[in-house]
Amino acid sequence: MDLPKLQVALDSDNTAQAIEVLRKVEDVIDVVEAGTILVYKDGLSAVRNLRAMAPDKILLADIKCADAGTKCGQSCKDAGADWMTCINAATVPTMSNAQKEIEVQVELYEGWDNKERMQEWLDHGIHQVVYHQSRDAKFAGQKWSEQDVENVKNLINMGFKVSVTGGVHPEILKLFKGVPVYTFIAGRAIREADDPHAVAKQFKDEINRIWG
Amino acid sequence: MDLPKLQVALDSDNTAQAIEVLRKVEDVIDVVEAGTILVYKDGLSAVRNLRAMAPDKILLADIKCADAGTKCGQSCKDAGADWMTCINAATVPTMSNAQKEIEVQVELYEGWDNKERMQEWLDHGIHQVVYHQSRDAKFAGQKWSEQDVENVKNLINMGFKVSVTGGVHPEILKLFKGVPVYTFIAGRAIREADDPHAVAKQFKDEINRIWG
Repeated sequence: MDLPKLQVALDSDNTAQAIEVLRKVEDVIDVVEAGTILVYKDGLSAVRNLRAMAPDKILLADIKCADAGTKCGQSCKDAGADWMTCINAATVPTMSNAQKEIEVQVELYEGWDNKERMQEWLDHGIHQVVYHQSRDAKFAGQKWSEQDVENVKNLINMGFKVSVTGGVHPEILKLFKGVPVYTFIAGRAIREADDPHAVAKQFKDEINRIWG
Repeated sequence: MDLPKLQVALDSDNTAQAIEVLRKVEDVIDVVEAGTILVYKDGLSAVRNLRAMAPDKILLADIKCADAGTKCGQSCKDAGADWMTCINAATVPTMSNAQKEIEVQVELYEGWDNKERMQEWLDHGIHQVVYHQSRDAKFAGQKWSEQDVENVKNLINMGFKVSVTGGVHPEILKLFKGVPVYTFIAGRAIREADDPHAVAKQFKDEINRIWG
């Protein structure tokens, strides 16, 4: 089983803050995410600057594309991204157009659980999904559960590479023992830590312990 | 019946291009939209610059917020926007948090047609929706139909203020005769016209003729 990758979600308020975090964890993480909020704030120049900082990492532009797949895919690729997110509410033509330009991950928000539509994504060459708890739902008290683990397993069984995000801390990784998660995405757990490098290292150690 | 408003969608590649179009149509339109693509490209500084150009217009930040409603709402408001879009796949807590900061419009993409969820939006004070054809679906040949008009009527009957977008040209307005559409959103029809002002004027004349 391949080890799950570790992704740092840089939902920072500005590019400088994102660079500061990335500098501290760059040697540990596998995937750099230019967060949605960061792209809203600073535009795709945030992606360009993160690419310049980490030329050898996988770089994700988390723009949650809902429309204009070709244009969004081209723009993210031009800015240096390897992957781009689409929202599950995007139409199949949007996702499919984007996938022709760049590797697409579909983010699973409300209304995602529709097998027929998900099969269409697979049929159009879209093999990555992001399973998560919404930040706001989490603030409202939602916690990772057995049901989440089952959902992730089912998505993997359908043929998806599944990234897991939303309140991901080192302690929750063991819930997924035996499940070939593609990537764990950590945002605030790393960004807001006193020692981001130490927490990133904790994630990696836990991944090695459970899946190694 | 109030006249439908006219909104120009500035899905331009950069802020300068958006400003150039806005300068030409500013005296005719009611609502200025900082398009999703523009915000991806230049960040919220695009919204700030458009606000500076048109201090008295309604300004929409079309960021299609899917998560982190409070933060997104605050950021858009700080940048000078009056309205902000959420994607229909956002959870109710996300929309509701955003609505506490700024007037929210929900964009109706795949999976929107769920009466129960829409009633929840209304119950949480969210009264604006954007009905549209996706740009990519439209490129695939989809046209405005009687079904679209019925869908818009049903949304209005539920209690929503409904904006209509996606391949909106002056000629399609008459399809909505008798329907109290809140706003017609025109993007490329205006932006890519040889004479954007003349096309904006055509929209306004048609609105006055049909609803006046």
